[in-house]
Amino acid sequence: MTKTIDVCLSPELMHLYNVHDRTVVVVDIFRATSCMTTALAHGIHSIKPFARLEDCIAMKSDEYYTAGERDGKKVEGCDLGNSPFEYMEDYLKGKKIAFTTTNGTQAIAKSEGAREIIIGSFLNLSAVANYLLDGANNVLVVCAGWKGKVNQEDTLFAGALVEILKEHIEPDCDAPVMAQHLYNQAKTDMMHFLKDASHVRRLAKLNIYKDISFCLTPDQYDVVPVLKDGFLVKA
Amino acid sequence: MTKTIDVCLSPELMHLYNVHDRTVVVVDIFRATSCMTTALAHGIHSIKPFARLEDCIAMKSDEYYTAGERDGKKVEGCDLGNSPFEYMEDYLKGKKIAFTTTNGTQAIAKSEGAREIIIGSFLNLSAVANYLLDGANNVLVVCAGWKGKVNQEDTLFAGALVEILKEHIEPDCDAPVMAQHLYNQAKTDMMHFLKDASHVRRLAKLNIYKDISFCLTPDQYDVVPVLKDGFLVKA
Repeated sequence: MTKTIDVCLSPELMHLYNVHDRTVVVVDIFRATSCMTTALAHGIHSIKPFARLEDCIAMKSDEYYTAGERDGKKVEGCDLGNSPFEYMEDYLKGKKIAFTTTNGTQAIAKSEGAREIIIGSFLNLSAVANYLLDGANNVLVVCAGWKGKVNQEDTLFAGALVEILKEHIEPDCDAPVMAQHLYNQAKTDMMHFLKDASHVRRLAKLNIYKDISFCLTPDQYDVVPVLKDGFLVKA
Repeated sequence: MTKTIDVCLSPELMHLYNVHDRTVVVVDIFRATSCMTTALAHGIHSIKPFARLEDCIAMKSDEYYTAGERDGKKVEGCDLGNSPFEYMEDYLKGKKIAFTTTNGTQAIAKSEGAREIIIGSFLNLSAVANYLLDGANNVLVVCAGWKGKVNQEDTLFAGALVEILKEHIEPDCDAPVMAQHLYNQAKTDMMHFLKDASHVRRLAKLNIYKDISFCLTPDQYDVVPVLKDGFLVKA
Protein backbone atom coordinates (compact mmCIF):
# COMPACT_ATOMS: atom_id res chain seq x y z
CA MET A 1 0.00 0.00 0.00
CA THR A 2 1.45 3.33 -0.96
CA LYS A 3 -1.33 5.73 0.06
CA THR A 4 -2.21 6.55 3.67
CA ILE A 5 -5.33 7.79 5.45
CA ASP A 6 -5.33 9.82 8.65
CA VAL A 7 -8.20 11.27 10.66
CA CYS A 8 -8.27 14.69 12.33
CA LEU A 9 -10.93 14.31 15.02
CA SER A 10 -11.41 18.06 15.54
CA PRO A 11 -10.69 21.15 13.42
CA GLU A 12 -8.76 22.42 16.48
CA LEU A 13 -6.11 19.77 15.75
CA MET A 14 -5.58 20.79 12.10
CA HIS A 15 -2.22 22.46 12.87
CA LEU A 16 -0.81 18.97 13.55
CA TYR A 17 -1.40 17.81 9.98
CA ASN A 18 0.37 18.61 6.78
CA VAL A 19 -2.39 18.97 4.18
CA HIS A 20 -0.57 20.40 1.18
CA ASP A 21 -0.15 16.96 -0.42
CA ARG A 22 -3.43 15.44 0.75
CA THR A 23 -7.00 15.14 -0.32
CA VAL A 24 -8.99 16.40 2.65
CA VAL A 25 -12.46 14.94 3.18
CA VAL A 26 -14.51 17.32 5.32
CA VAL A 27 -17.32 15.63 7.22
CA ASP A 28 -20.15 17.10 9.29
CA ILE A 29 -22.78 14.37 9.26
CA PHE A 30 -25.37 16.34 11.29
CA ARG A 31 -25.88 18.07 8.93
CA ALA A 32 -23.74 20.42 6.82
CA THR A 33 -21.97 17.94 4.57
CA SER A 34 -25.12 15.83 4.27
CA CYS A 35 -26.91 18.95 3.00
CA MET A 36 -24.11 19.81 0.58
CA THR A 37 -24.13 16.31 -0.88
CA THR A 38 -27.92 16.33 -1.18
CA ALA A 39 -27.92 19.78 -2.77
CA LEU A 40 -25.47 18.93 -5.54
CA ALA A 41 -27.18 15.58 -6.14
CA HIS A 42 -30.47 17.40 -6.64
CA GLY A 43 -29.12 19.75 -9.27
CA ILE A 44 -28.04 22.82 -7.32
CA HIS A 45 -25.37 24.59 -9.41
CA SER A 46 -22.79 25.28 -6.68
CA ILE A 47 -22.32 26.08 -3.00
CA LYS A 48 -20.04 28.79 -1.66
CA PRO A 49 -19.11 27.92 1.96
CA PHE A 50 -18.47 30.68 4.50
CA ALA A 51 -17.04 30.41 8.00
CA ARG A 52 -18.47 33.79 9.06
CA LEU A 53 -22.21 34.33 9.19
CA GLU A 54 -22.03 37.98 8.12
CA ASP A 55 -20.04 37.10 4.98
CA CYS A 56 -22.66 34.55 4.04
CA ILE A 57 -25.62 36.87 4.61
CA ALA A 58 -23.91 39.58 2.54
CA MET A 59 -24.14 37.25 -0.49
CA LYS A 60 -27.94 37.46 -0.61
CA SER A 61 -28.89 38.64 -4.09
CA ASP A 62 -30.76 37.61 -7.24
CA GLU A 63 -27.88 35.26 -7.89
CA TYR A 64 -27.57 33.63 -4.44
CA TYR A 65 -29.82 31.93 -1.96
CA THR A 66 -28.37 32.04 1.56
CA ALA A 67 -28.29 29.10 3.95
CA GLY A 68 -27.36 29.67 7.58
CA GLU A 69 -27.33 27.51 10.68
CA ARG A 70 -26.05 28.22 14.18
CA ASP A 71 -26.46 25.86 17.15
CA GLY A 72 -28.65 23.51 15.12
CA LYS A 73 -31.18 26.20 14.15
CA LYS A 74 -31.82 28.11 10.93
CA VAL A 75 -30.49 31.67 11.13
CA GLU A 76 -33.21 34.27 10.84
CA GLY A 77 -33.03 36.14 7.54
CA CYS A 78 -31.48 33.25 5.63
CA ASP A 79 -33.43 31.52 2.88
CA LEU A 80 -32.51 28.03 3.94
CA GLY A 81 -31.49 26.12 7.06
CA ASN A 82 -29.51 22.94 7.61
CA SER A 83 -31.98 20.14 6.78
CA PRO A 84 -31.11 18.02 3.75
CA PHE A 85 -34.78 17.87 2.77
CA GLU A 86 -34.77 21.61 2.04
CA TYR A 87 -32.21 21.01 -0.70
CA MET A 88 -34.35 18.59 -2.67
CA GLU A 89 -36.79 21.26 -3.87
CA ASP A 90 -37.22 21.85 -7.59
CA TYR A 91 -37.02 25.66 -7.34
CA LEU A 92 -33.34 25.35 -6.31
CA LYS A 93 -32.20 23.46 -9.40
CA GLY A 94 -29.42 25.38 -11.19
CA LYS A 95 -29.18 27.91 -8.39
CA LYS A 96 -26.17 29.04 -6.31
CA ILE A 97 -26.15 28.88 -2.53
CA ALA A 98 -24.03 30.72 0.03
CA PHE A 99 -23.77 28.41 3.06
CA THR A 100 -22.59 28.81 6.66
CA THR A 101 -22.97 26.39 9.56
CA THR A 102 -21.75 26.10 13.17
CA ASN A 103 -19.07 23.53 12.45
CA GLY A 104 -18.99 22.24 8.87
CA THR A 105 -18.07 25.38 7.02
CA GLN A 106 -15.48 26.21 9.73
CA ALA A 107 -13.85 22.84 9.05
CA ILE A 108 -13.70 23.66 5.33
CA ALA A 109 -12.06 27.01 6.13
CA LYS A 110 -9.47 25.29 8.36
CA SER A 111 -8.63 22.86 5.54
CA GLU A 112 -7.31 25.68 3.35
CA GLY A 113 -3.99 24.78 1.79
CA ALA A 114 -4.94 21.18 1.09
CA ARG A 115 -4.13 19.83 -2.34
CA GLU A 116 -7.84 19.11 -2.71
CA ILE A 117 -10.94 19.45 -0.51
CA ILE A 118 -13.96 17.20 -0.98
CA ILE A 119 -17.16 16.70 0.99
CA GLY A 120 -18.10 13.40 2.65
CA SER A 121 -21.29 12.09 4.25
CA PHE A 122 -22.89 8.71 4.65
CA LEU A 123 -25.16 9.74 1.75
CA ASN A 124 -22.19 9.60 -0.64
CA LEU A 125 -19.93 7.18 1.27
CA SER A 126 -19.11 4.80 -1.60
CA ALA A 127 -18.73 7.63 -4.09
CA VAL A 128 -16.16 9.28 -1.81
CA ALA A 129 -14.36 5.97 -1.20
CA ASN A 130 -14.10 5.33 -4.94
CA TYR A 131 -12.91 8.87 -5.55
CA LEU A 132 -10.12 8.42 -2.99
CA LEU A 133 -9.17 5.04 -4.45
CA ASP A 134 -8.89 6.52 -7.93
CA GLY A 135 -6.88 9.53 -6.74
CA ALA A 136 -3.12 9.66 -6.20
CA ASN A 137 -3.12 11.63 -2.94
CA ASN A 138 -2.86 10.60 0.67
CA VAL A 139 -6.06 11.25 2.57
CA LEU A 140 -7.00 13.26 5.66
CA VAL A 141 -10.55 13.02 6.96
CA VAL A 142 -11.40 16.20 8.89
CA CYS A 143 -14.23 15.74 11.37
CA ALA A 144 -16.11 18.98 11.97
CA GLY A 145 -17.07 17.99 15.52
CA TRP A 146 -19.02 20.38 17.74
CA LYS A 147 -17.35 23.71 18.53
CA GLY A 148 -13.95 22.06 18.62
CA LYS A 149 -14.97 18.97 20.59
CA VAL A 150 -14.95 15.58 18.93
CA ASN A 151 -18.24 13.90 18.08
CA GLN A 152 -19.33 10.37 17.41
CA GLU A 153 -21.11 10.66 14.08
CA ASP A 154 -18.25 12.33 12.22
CA THR A 155 -15.79 9.85 13.76
CA LEU A 156 -18.00 6.96 12.62
CA PHE A 157 -17.97 8.27 9.05
CA ALA A 158 -14.16 8.51 9.17
CA GLY A 159 -14.09 4.93 10.47
CA ALA A 160 -16.38 3.78 7.65
CA LEU A 161 -13.94 5.20 5.08
CA VAL A 162 -10.94 3.57 6.80
CA GLU A 163 -12.81 0.24 6.87
CA ILE A 164 -13.89 0.39 3.22
CA LEU A 165 -10.42 1.40 2.04
CA LYS A 166 -8.43 -0.94 4.32
CA GLU A 167 -7.15 -3.21 1.56
CA HIS A 168 -5.80 -0.27 -0.40
CA ILE A 169 -5.03 2.72 1.85
CA GLU A 170 -3.11 2.33 5.10
CA PRO A 171 -4.02 4.06 8.40
CA ASP A 172 -1.40 6.63 9.34
CA CYS A 173 -1.74 6.83 13.09
CA ASP A 174 -4.05 5.87 15.99
CA ALA A 175 -7.03 8.10 15.17
CA PRO A 176 -8.02 6.21 11.97
CA VAL A 177 -7.70 2.86 13.77
CA MET A 178 -9.85 4.06 16.68
CA ALA A 179 -12.46 5.41 14.26
CA GLN A 180 -12.46 2.10 12.39
CA HIS A 181 -12.99 0.13 15.64
CA LEU A 182 -15.91 2.38 16.55
CA TYR A 183 -17.49 2.08 13.11
CA ASN A 184 -17.26 -1.71 13.17
CA GLN A 185 -18.99 -1.70 16.55
CA ALA A 186 -21.69 0.69 15.35
CA LYS A 187 -22.37 -0.28 11.75
CA THR A 188 -25.19 -2.77 12.20
CA ASP A 189 -27.36 -0.14 13.92
CA MET A 190 -25.84 3.33 13.88
CA MET A 191 -29.06 4.98 15.05
CA HIS A 192 -29.04 2.87 18.21
CA PHE A 193 -25.29 3.29 18.71
CA LEU A 194 -25.72 7.06 18.58
CA LYS A 195 -28.69 7.28 20.92
CA ASP A 196 -26.52 8.93 23.60
CA ALA A 197 -24.52 11.08 21.22
CA SER A 198 -24.63 14.71 22.29
CA HIS A 199 -25.65 16.10 18.92
CA VAL A 200 -28.40 13.52 18.46
CA ARG A 201 -29.84 14.68 21.79
CA ARG A 202 -29.37 18.30 20.70
CA LEU A 203 -31.16 17.66 17.40
CA ALA A 204 -33.85 15.47 18.96
CA LYS A 205 -34.86 18.46 21.06
CA LEU A 206 -35.39 20.31 17.78
CA ASN A 207 -37.64 17.50 16.49
CA ILE A 208 -35.59 16.44 13.55
CA TYR A 209 -35.44 12.67 13.87
CA LYS A 210 -36.20 12.44 10.15
CA ASP A 211 -33.01 14.36 9.36
CA ILE A 212 -30.94 12.19 11.73
CA SER A 213 -32.17 8.99 10.17
CA PHE A 214 -31.63 10.25 6.60
CA CYS A 215 -28.10 11.55 7.36
CA LEU A 216 -27.12 8.07 8.57
CA THR A 217 -28.31 6.31 5.41
CA PRO A 218 -25.39 5.21 3.22
CA ASP A 219 -25.11 5.64 -0.52
CA GLN A 220 -28.12 7.67 -1.50
CA TYR A 221 -26.14 9.69 -4.02
CA ASP A 222 -23.30 9.01 -6.43
CA VAL A 223 -21.92 12.52 -6.11
CA VAL A 224 -18.64 13.93 -4.75
CA PRO A 225 -18.66 17.66 -3.99
CA VAL A 226 -15.23 19.20 -4.67
CA LEU A 227 -14.06 22.70 -3.73
CA LYS A 228 -12.98 24.55 -6.89
CA ASP A 229 -12.03 28.23 -6.72
CA GLY A 230 -14.06 28.65 -3.54
CA PHE A 231 -17.15 26.83 -4.83
CA LEU A 232 -18.35 23.33 -4.10
CA VAL A 233 -19.30 21.65 -7.37
CA LYS A 234 -19.76 18.10 -8.57
CA ALA A 235 -16.44 16.33 -9.21
CA MET B 1 -26.11 11.57 39.14
CA THR B 2 -24.72 14.94 40.01
CA LYS B 3 -21.09 14.58 38.96
CA THR B 4 -19.90 14.43 35.34
CA ILE B 5 -16.88 13.02 33.56
CA ASP B 6 -15.43 14.38 30.32
CA VAL B 7 -12.42 13.26 28.31
CA CYS B 8 -9.93 15.57 26.56
CA LEU B 9 -8.36 13.33 23.91
CA SER B 10 -5.34 15.57 23.30
CA PRO B 11 -3.61 18.29 25.36
CA GLU B 12 -4.07 20.49 22.25
CA LEU B 13 -7.80 20.57 23.03
CA MET B 14 -7.41 21.73 26.65
CA HIS B 15 -8.54 25.28 25.82
CA LEU B 16 -12.04 23.88 25.20
CA TYR B 17 -12.42 22.72 28.79
CA ASN B 18 -13.05 24.61 31.97
CA VAL B 19 -10.86 22.93 34.58
CA HIS B 20 -11.06 25.28 37.55
CA ASP B 21 -13.83 23.24 39.21
CA ARG B 22 -12.64 19.80 38.10
CA THR B 23 -10.36 17.04 39.21
CA VAL B 24 -8.10 16.43 36.22
CA VAL B 25 -6.75 12.90 35.74
CA VAL B 26 -3.63 13.04 33.58
CA VAL B 27 -2.91 9.80 31.73
CA ASP B 28 0.08 8.75 29.66
CA ILE B 29 -0.04 4.96 29.78
CA PHE B 30 3.15 4.43 27.74
CA ARG B 31 4.79 5.30 30.07
CA ALA B 32 5.01 8.52 32.11
CA THR B 33 2.00 8.11 34.39
CA SER B 34 2.68 4.37 34.76
CA CYS B 35 6.18 5.29 35.97
CA MET B 36 4.88 7.96 38.37
CA THR B 37 2.39 5.54 39.90
CA THR B 38 5.03 2.84 40.23
CA ALA B 39 7.54 5.26 41.76
CA LEU B 40 5.24 6.49 44.51
CA ALA B 41 4.02 2.95 45.19
CA HIS B 42 7.63 1.85 45.69
CA GLY B 43 8.40 4.52 48.26
CA ILE B 44 9.83 7.38 46.24
CA HIS B 45 9.28 10.57 48.25
CA SER B 46 7.97 12.85 45.49
CA ILE B 47 8.18 13.67 41.79
CA LYS B 48 8.53 17.16 40.36
CA PRO B 49 7.23 17.15 36.76
CA PHE B 50 8.74 19.48 34.17
CA ALA B 51 7.52 20.25 30.67
CA ARG B 52 10.95 21.55 29.55
CA LEU B 53 13.93 19.24 29.44
CA GLU B 54 16.44 21.92 30.44
CA ASP B 55 14.45 22.80 33.57
CA CYS B 56 14.44 19.14 34.57
CA ILE B 57 18.16 18.63 34.00
CA ALA B 58 18.95 21.78 36.01
CA MET B 59 17.47 20.06 39.08
CA LYS B 60 20.26 17.47 39.22
CA SER B 61 21.81 17.67 42.71
CA ASP B 62 22.39 15.67 45.88
CA GLU B 63 18.69 16.12 46.55
CA TYR B 64 17.29 15.15 43.15
CA TYR B 65 17.57 12.32 40.70
CA THR B 66 16.63 13.36 37.18
CA ALA B 67 14.43 11.34 34.84
CA GLY B 68 14.17 12.32 31.19
CA GLU B 69 12.57 10.78 28.14
CA ARG B 70 12.18 12.13 24.62
CA ASP B 71 10.73 10.12 21.71
CA GLY B 72 10.57 6.97 23.80
CA LYS B 73 14.25 7.03 24.73
CA LYS B 74 16.13 7.98 27.91
CA VAL B 75 17.77 11.39 27.64
CA GLU B 76 21.55 11.23 27.90
CA GLY B 77 22.77 12.71 31.14
CA CYS B 78 19.61 11.87 33.09
CA ASP B 79 19.77 9.33 35.91
CA LEU B 80 16.59 7.55 34.91
CA GLY B 81 14.49 6.88 31.82
CA ASN B 82 10.83 6.09 31.32
CA SER B 83 10.54 2.41 32.23
CA PRO B 84 8.41 1.62 35.30
CA PHE B 85 10.87 -1.11 36.31
CA GLU B 86 13.55 1.51 36.97
CA TYR B 87 11.37 2.98 39.69
CA MET B 88 11.14 -0.20 41.74
CA GLU B 89 14.76 -0.09 42.90
CA ASP B 90 15.53 0.11 46.61
CA TYR B 91 18.12 2.88 46.28
CA LEU B 92 15.34 5.29 45.21
CA LYS B 93 13.22 4.88 48.35
CA GLY B 94 12.67 8.23 50.06
CA LYS B 95 14.32 10.11 47.19
CA LYS B 96 13.02 13.02 45.09
CA ILE B 97 12.85 12.84 41.30
CA ALA B 98 12.68 15.60 38.68
CA PHE B 99 10.82 14.13 35.70
CA THR B 100 10.24 15.18 32.09
CA THR B 101 8.74 13.16 29.22
CA THR B 102 7.66 13.77 25.62
CA ASN B 103 3.95 13.93 26.37
CA GLY B 104 2.99 13.16 29.97
CA THR B 105 4.63 16.05 31.75
CA GLN B 106 3.41 18.42 29.00
CA ALA B 107 -0.15 17.28 29.73
CA ILE B 108 0.37 18.02 33.44
CA ALA B 109 1.63 21.50 32.55
CA LYS B 110 -1.42 22.14 30.34
CA SER B 111 -3.73 21.11 33.19
CA GLU B 112 -2.61 24.06 35.31
CA GLY B 113 -5.54 25.86 36.87
CA ALA B 114 -7.46 22.69 37.64
CA ARG B 115 -8.96 22.40 41.11
CA GLU B 116 -6.91 19.23 41.51
CA ILE B 117 -4.52 17.21 39.34
CA ILE B 118 -4.05 13.49 39.88
CA ILE B 119 -2.20 10.79 37.93
CA GLY B 120 -3.93 7.79 36.36
CA SER B 121 -2.67 4.56 34.82
CA PHE B 122 -3.98 1.03 34.51
CA LEU B 123 -1.65 0.18 37.40
CA ASN B 124 -3.81 2.26 39.78
CA LEU B 125 -7.13 2.17 37.90
CA SER B 126 -9.38 1.16 40.81
CA ALA B 127 -7.58 3.46 43.24
CA VAL B 128 -8.21 6.41 40.89
CA ALA B 129 -11.85 5.39 40.33
CA ASN B 130 -12.46 5.21 44.09
CA TYR B 131 -10.72 8.54 44.63
CA LEU B 132 -13.01 10.18 42.03
CA LEU B 133 -16.09 8.54 43.55
CA ASP B 134 -15.20 9.84 47.00
CA GLY B 135 -14.43 13.36 45.73
CA ALA B 136 -16.94 16.13 45.16
CA ASN B 137 -15.58 17.45 41.86
CA ASN B 138 -16.51 16.85 38.27
CA VAL B 139 -13.84 14.95 36.37
CA LEU B 140 -11.77 15.62 33.25
CA VAL B 141 -9.48 12.87 31.99
CA VAL B 142 -6.63 14.43 29.99
CA CYS B 143 -5.01 12.02 27.55
CA ALA B 144 -1.39 12.91 26.92
CA GLY B 145 -1.46 11.45 23.40
CA TRP B 146 1.59 11.66 21.14
CA LYS B 147 2.81 15.16 20.28
CA GLY B 148 -0.73 16.46 20.18
CA LYS B 149 -2.26 13.54 18.28
CA VAL B 150 -4.70 11.23 20.02
CA ASN B 151 -3.61 7.73 20.92
CA GLN B 152 -5.38 4.50 21.68
CA GLU B 153 -3.91 3.49 25.02
CA ASP B 154 -4.68 6.74 26.82
CA THR B 155 -8.19 6.75 25.31
CA LEU B 156 -8.71 3.18 26.53
CA PHE B 157 -7.77 4.18 30.07
CA ALA B 158 -10.24 7.09 29.90
CA GLY B 159 -12.88 4.63 28.69
CA ALA B 160 -12.10 2.24 31.54
CA LEU B 161 -12.74 5.03 34.06
CA VAL B 162 -16.01 6.02 32.35
CA GLU B 163 -17.12 2.37 32.37
CA ILE B 164 -16.23 1.76 36.04
CA LEU B 165 -17.90 5.00 37.16
CA LYS B 166 -20.98 4.74 34.91
CA GLU B 167 -23.48 4.16 37.70
CA HIS B 168 -22.28 7.22 39.59
CA ILE B 169 -20.69 9.79 37.27
CA GLU B 170 -22.33 10.84 34.00
CA PRO B 171 -20.48 11.30 30.68
CA ASP B 172 -20.47 14.96 29.67
CA CYS B 173 -20.12 14.78 25.91
CA ASP B 174 -19.22 12.40 23.06
CA ALA B 175 -15.54 11.81 23.86
CA PRO B 176 -16.18 9.86 27.10
CA VAL B 177 -18.84 7.73 25.38
CA MET B 178 -16.49 6.95 22.46
CA ALA B 179 -13.69 6.06 24.87
CA GLN B 180 -16.07 3.79 26.81
CA HIS B 181 -17.14 1.98 23.60
CA LEU B 182 -13.49 1.42 22.67
CA TYR B 183 -12.59 0.14 26.13
CA ASN B 184 -15.47 -2.32 26.15
CA GLN B 185 -14.30 -3.62 22.79
CA ALA B 186 -10.69 -3.89 23.96
CA LYS B 187 -10.88 -4.96 27.59
CA THR B 188 -10.72 -8.73 27.22
CA ASP B 189 -7.34 -8.50 25.47
CA MET B 190 -5.89 -5.01 25.41
CA MET B 191 -2.47 -6.20 24.24
CA HIS B 192 -4.04 -7.73 21.13
CA PHE B 193 -6.34 -4.73 20.58
CA LEU B 194 -3.34 -2.41 20.64
CA LYS B 195 -1.12 -4.44 18.33
CA ASP B 196 -1.47 -1.80 15.60
CA ALA B 197 -1.28 1.19 17.90
CA SER B 198 1.39 3.60 16.76
CA HIS B 199 3.13 3.90 20.12
CA VAL B 200 3.19 0.14 20.65
CA ARG B 201 4.99 -0.16 17.31
CA ARG B 202 7.28 2.71 18.34
CA LEU B 203 8.11 1.04 21.67
CA ALA B 204 8.37 -2.44 20.19
CA LYS B 205 11.21 -1.13 18.02
CA LEU B 206 12.94 -0.17 21.27
CA ASN B 207 12.49 -3.71 22.63
CA ILE B 208 10.31 -2.91 25.58
CA TYR B 209 7.50 -5.42 25.33
CA LYS B 210 7.89 -6.06 29.06
CA ASP B 211 7.05 -2.40 29.77
CA ILE B 212 4.05 -2.48 27.43
CA SER B 213 2.61 -5.56 29.08
CA PHE B 214 3.17 -4.21 32.61
CA CYS B 215 1.66 -0.80 31.80
CA LEU B 216 -1.55 -2.53 30.63
CA THR B 217 -1.96 -4.54 33.85
CA PRO B 218 -4.76 -3.17 36.03
CA ASP B 219 -4.62 -2.59 39.77
CA GLN B 220 -1.07 -3.32 40.74
CA TYR B 221 -0.96 -0.44 43.18
CA ASP B 222 -3.41 1.18 45.59
CA VAL B 223 -1.84 4.60 45.18
CA VAL B 224 -3.11 7.92 43.75
CA PRO B 225 -0.42 10.48 42.93
CA VAL B 226 -1.69 14.03 43.53
CA LEU B 227 0.00 17.28 42.52
CA LYS B 228 0.62 19.41 45.63
CA ASP B 229 2.61 22.65 45.38
CA GLY B 230 4.29 21.40 42.22
CA PHE B 231 5.15 17.94 43.57
CA LEU B 232 3.45 14.63 42.91
CA VAL B 233 2.94 12.86 46.21
CA LYS B 234 0.69 10.09 47.49
CA ALA B 235 -2.88 11.27 48.12
